[in-house]
Amino acid sequence: MKKFINNVDNLLVESLSGFASAHSDLVTLHLEPTYLTRKNASKSTPKNKVAIISGGGSGHEPLHAGYIGFGMLDAACPGHVFTSPTPDQMLTAAEAVHADMGVLFIVKNYAGDVMNFEMAAEMLPFENATVLTSDDCAVINSTYTTGRRGVAGTMIIEKCVGSLAETGANLAACKALGDKVNQRTASIGVALTSCTVPAAGRPTFDIADTEIEMGVGIHGEPGRRRETMREADAIVNDCVDAILADFKARNIHLNSEALLLINGFGATPLMELYLIYNTAAKLFHNHGVKISRSLVGNYVTALDMAGTSITLCLLDDEIKQHWDSPVHTAALRWGM
Amino acid sequence: MKKFINNVDNLLVESLSGFASAHSDLVTLHLEPTYLTRKNASKSTPKNKVAIISGGGSGHEPLHAGYIGFGMLDAACPGHVFTSPTPDQMLTAAEAVHADMGVLFIVKNYAGDVMNFEMAAEMLPFENATVLTSDDCAVINSTYTTGRRGVAGTMIIEKCVGSLAETGANLAACKALGDKVNQRTASIGVALTSCTVPAAGRPTFDIADTEIEMGVGIHGEPGRRRETMREADAIVNDCVDAILADFKARNIHLNSEALLLINGFGATPLMELYLIYNTAAKLFHNHGVKISRSLVGNYVTALDMAGTSITLCLLDDEIKQHWDSPVHTAALRWGM
Repeated sequence: MKKFINNVDNLLVESLSGFASAHSDLVTLHLEPTYLTRKNASKSTPKNKVAIISGGGSGHEPLHAGYIGFGMLDAACPGHVFTSPTPDQMLTAAEAVHADMGVLFIVKNYAGDVMNFEMAAEMLPFENATVLTSDDCAVINSTYTTGRRGVAGTMIIEKCVGSLAETGANLAACKALGDKVNQRTASIGVALTSCTVPAAGRPTFDIADTEIEMGVGIHGEPGRRRETMREADAIVNDCVDAILADFKARNIHLNSEALLLINGFGATPLMELYLIYNTAAKLFHNHGVKISRSLVGNYVTALDMAGTSITLCLLDDEIKQHWDSPVHTAALRWGM
Repeated sequence: MKKFINNVDNLLVESLSGFASAHSDLVTLHLEPTYLTRKNASKSTPKNKVAIISGGGSGHEPLHAGYIGFGMLDAACPGHVFTSPTPDQMLTAAEAVHADMGVLFIVKNYAGDVMNFEMAAEMLPFENATVLTSDDCAVINSTYTTGRRGVAGTMIIEKCVGSLAETGANLAACKALGDKVNQRTASIGVALTSCTVPAAGRPTFDIADTEIEMGVGIHGEPGRRRETMREADAIVNDCVDAILADFKARNIHLNSEALLLINGFGATPLMELYLIYNTAAKLFHNHGVKISRSLVGNYVTALDMAGTSITLCLLDDEIKQHWDSPVHTAALRWGM
């Protein structure tokens, strides 16, 4: 294992310190417990909005801290690599940013995250709700999950809900939009290589030069099956088919505009991600889906895994409005 | 070699097609010869500005096509992976976007690029000039280069010159700013792994699990020396020392604000890049350099190489103004 680290125990704090220093105009890092907020967020400067808080294990950067800022998150709670944050992190973050309109937690569906965010929610002395993201259509139940996993679609949910919250919408409306976007989003990933968790020091799984893991999770957990490596178009075709089949199985009609997110897991060149976009957009078009919004790059990663995930989010006027609205975070910025 | 490609011959066009499709609001792709322009750019819609054109081998994405748009480039000419574009590409691109105030080529200092851009410049029937970028302080002369190599600092030069051109500044002023930013910028890279050129099908160089290549180029060409892998802070310290020594050798004073760019070569997790930022910013601070601007991410890559480059650009009021100004490209966007 070759990584730019000093020692495994300090990796998270050193990295977060660099993040907070590089984006000191946007975020503030708090330690003991560890969470990040928008700069100068505090109860002494309340804003008339629902506080949007997310979190989860580290190693998926820029998720979640990279999405703190106007139009997205108010705070994020990072755990150690691929490890859930603890309830005291969410509680302290919620205390720091809530503004009397309640707190909405956006939680990826992994057992540890769900349990810890639930504990925090029960202990919170004010109104709160949770959007559980589960956009991964690869598998039902997985290594760390009962039910579908929350993957790259999570950042689309954070963008849309974050936008709605800025308008002063109430907690129920924010939760309803988050649930709707989650419902209208499907993702599937494929890995060419494993990731290497620093504390483990060796690849999470073995994979031959002739193999891919179809449906891989964002921690390198198993997907649908190990398949033979083949040309990009054939792989993308299978991913697109899986997404289309998922919407069909859930009785969600496809005849609408859509956002296509081609996400890199961390070690896939942009050149390849755009090639994947090219094929996926054509295939969806052939099935009557008009791709009117796009995003290509490393948005929800799995450390140094080579691979990609394809996410389709079916837009309606409300989702489109909140996707297009101005956002100013470290990892996503437009309109300001 | 596992990559998301169909066949090596079509990789570039398929990837560019995806790029142009994903960013159809921003760019137009032209084929035979291959170049990209801002959307709807043509002589029939002249703007009163110097046309800024860059180009070079592919594999460094988002450089250069990702920097086409308001505030940066008017056009980009991509060659095949790590291969110079040809003069007909630059000529045709220049014809398409020039607006009677001349053309400025921004060219990274590699023998093939220099030769081909020079040929295009000689054949161009209108006023033109060239900024040759050479920010890499690792080595004098290299595999593909006589003199210093142009690396990640190139995107800073493109940002600043592109901003100045939008103000209607003339060709001489744009060239002067580009030369100044180049002069005030120094970079050095380090590789943990090799990249793999698709047409070659195997890693460009062999490197042991215990080794790093200090001063590596963005094509995987050799740097200063092969060194022993060690903790991140020690590696970053050596990079910072190399940059400080370079400015000192060139008699450029350090007591100013600076932009610190921590660039990933393609396979380095953001978590590690921010850790590198944390250490580098502190070390520069200890030497009297105030880091007042920052950028962390994959901006000038080397396909799937794991590694990083550190770039310091010494700001003055003019450079700061043009770095901060609004920009709207696929890979860099703020203020609009």
